[in-house]
Amino acid sequence: MTPADRPDLPAPRRILLGPGPSDVPARVLRAMATPIVSHLDPEMLVLLDRIAAQLREVFRTTNRLTLLMPGTGMSAMEGAIVNLVEPGDTVLVGTCGVFGRRMADIARRAGAEVVEVEAPWGRIVDPDAMRRAIAEHRPRVVAIVHGETSTGIEQPVAEIAAAARDHGALTVVDTVASLGGVPFDVDASGADVVYSGSQKCLSCPPGLAPITLGPRAEERLRARTRPVQSFYLDLTLLDRYWNEPHVYHHTAATSLYYAMYEGLRVVLEEGLERRIARHAACHRALLAGLEALGIGLASDPEHRLPVLNPVEVPDGVDAHRVRRRLLAEHGIEVGAGLGELADRVWRVGLMGESARPNNVLLLLAALERILREEGARCGTGAVEAAASVFGSAAD
Amino acid sequence: MTPADRPDLPAPRRILLGPGPSDVPARVLRAMATPIVSHLDPEMLVLLDRIAAQLREVFRTTNRLTLLMPGTGMSAMEGAIVNLVEPGDTVLVGTCGVFGRRMADIARRAGAEVVEVEAPWGRIVDPDAMRRAIAEHRPRVVAIVHGETSTGIEQPVAEIAAAARDHGALTVVDTVASLGGVPFDVDASGADVVYSGSQKCLSCPPGLAPITLGPRAEERLRARTRPVQSFYLDLTLLDRYWNEPHVYHHTAATSLYYAMYEGLRVVLEEGLERRIARHAACHRALLAGLEALGIGLASDPEHRLPVLNPVEVPDGVDAHRVRRRLLAEHGIEVGAGLGELADRVWRVGLMGESARPNNVLLLLAALERILREEGARCGTGAVEAAASVFGSAAD
Repeated sequence: MTPADRPDLPAPRRILLGPGPSDVPARVLRAMATPIVSHLDPEMLVLLDRIAAQLREVFRTTNRLTLLMPGTGMSAMEGAIVNLVEPGDTVLVGTCGVFGRRMADIARRAGAEVVEVEAPWGRIVDPDAMRRAIAEHRPRVVAIVHGETSTGIEQPVAEIAAAARDHGALTVVDTVASLGGVPFDVDASGADVVYSGSQKCLSCPPGLAPITLGPRAEERLRARTRPVQSFYLDLTLLDRYWNEPHVYHHTAATSLYYAMYEGLRVVLEEGLERRIARHAACHRALLAGLEALGIGLASDPEHRLPVLNPVEVPDGVDAHRVRRRLLAEHGIEVGAGLGELADRVWRVGLMGESARPNNVLLLLAALERILREEGARCGTGAVEAAASVFGSAAD
Repeated sequence: MTPADRPDLPAPRRILLGPGPSDVPARVLRAMATPIVSHLDPEMLVLLDRIAAQLREVFRTTNRLTLLMPGTGMSAMEGAIVNLVEPGDTVLVGTCGVFGRRMADIARRAGAEVVEVEAPWGRIVDPDAMRRAIAEHRPRVVAIVHGETSTGIEQPVAEIAAAARDHGALTVVDTVASLGGVPFDVDASGADVVYSGSQKCLSCPPGLAPITLGPRAEERLRARTRPVQSFYLDLTLLDRYWNEPHVYHHTAATSLYYAMYEGLRVVLEEGLERRIARHAACHRALLAGLEALGIGLASDPEHRLPVLNPVEVPDGVDAHRVRRRLLAEHGIEVGAGLGELADRVWRVGLMGESARPNNVLLLLAALERILREEGARCGTGAVEAAASVFGSAAD
């Protein structure tokens, strides 16, 4: 390989309006330029404590065992399941999209008997159906996705968690896409394990995943009869690194911890309430703009996840081509449809730092222009409709 | 939590002379301040290709399946094993320190029948003993650590890999501590799977782990009868993300990929030969300085890993207290002993960006001063002895 094959790092300017990652605030990016310390440095151990305290605030929990899994949101999904499950255990999963299916896949790989309660894509999983399945199958673990990124629905979980508890099951909730962008109160939810991702509504870079375990889940870790199948994701070992006696388990990714600390500081300085209101306003404005264009969302209006909008592709329009043009001509990334919604929707994320009025207006302007050029039959005035939602509060 | 509990990110100045992470070059740190793109951005896919090409150069391999595992070196260790092993398979592990034991632990968690060939800490695993064990137990996988960070030995692997191949077994080699600091030629080694860490002799930040699989290992992936127990570490899925058809698997940690690209550029601009010679010179100088002090290493002189030096703690000296003083008074981190060598050695890493003459001289000066103040009976003139090794080449 010659130096010509090693050009300078490309740094394209993007506006990240897909399903995540979202734009990362400049001060969070700068935090990663800080010279690193090692995973056992006394200053690092102080930082772990502070990050855990920040995570408890964001999760709204007093759970002791609250930390970052050493990988992306998927590592937390896998970690949640493999730490609770032993081969032969029954796991009940509510699925209405890609991420519920992944939970089921991971549980099967861990040797569980998996029962799925399925819902059509774009709808929530019926809490009554979950309750009946819990009573019938008596699972060890009940798993459900709070914000399904593939379909843009927000799943009610309290009723499911209560039913699980009544039958002695533990509830695992995936808030990868929702935490920090819509209300979720871990302690009030009744969930035993809740995890998230760093790179969506929290606007930190991807690579670490917040997780919190309540006392019943901790008890389950202690009651296991076999070691957790994964060493890397073993929460008992991670606990002993994060907390006393601070025993080496893996070499923590210092730079990402710096970013998480700074990024969570940004979240908490804004305040969860204000942050959630900002996400909601961007969603309403996007909806108003799309309505002017005559375009709908593929998600059930009663259970829409405001931070992830499955925007229906108008008839006759090449979904992939429009996405490519948004990226090439405007630097705007939106997500492709996944699974059953492939080619039928664009997934427009308005998450974290990306959930800004300017981004909503720009996206609508670009989309309206491109759709017109692509010969789509749709309305006009998207920007004006959205702007009127923001009113004079637009930043 | 009040803002008083969220102070600015601490940024202590450290000289990282422990078992890793090592100091990260400024341009690699700066790369992480680059605004991120998403895991499926066209520019990101180009970057993946370029990183894979860099990794092949560093590994000295033409292996097609060469990529970064989405976690630290431990994720690559676990990934290597769980992708090759199915429950009931026999795995033969050579162990002479913490990391060999971890390989055995991980293989057991994956349901393997594990046979260990053990060696005393500070010695290599006897290749003849490995050969006999391979012939006797006919393992599916033979696993060995090339550079054992807990004891500072460099294990010969070619003879073991050849014996494994003769008996139809696959060889997994851990070069977490050694790659980029001592010679290791994947294609010449006969190993089927080789992995490393980012944060040791490559001086990138921790969080991603290079791995490469030869054709026999790829064939093994295709011949599996059960899914890999880990979704997150499933190499077939990771392959389909890194290479065509570039299917989403997890949200790649863009910032760390930027750092890897820039860090591997630094490595390749220096050149592997020069880099390895620099590590060797630092090791010789450290040894000369320690000899002047009358201090030895706990590792077999014939198989010393130059980048990790298990420095024997002089009689009557409190190992922990000296480490604390080095950190507090000089900002120098050295590692504590692990396992059987706990409290008996300091682990002095001279890795990557940290392997610099100035660092060797400073460490020796600080160590000599502190040992004298601690009342240790040791010699003098450590700095002069080391400087004479560097001669006029000291930077």
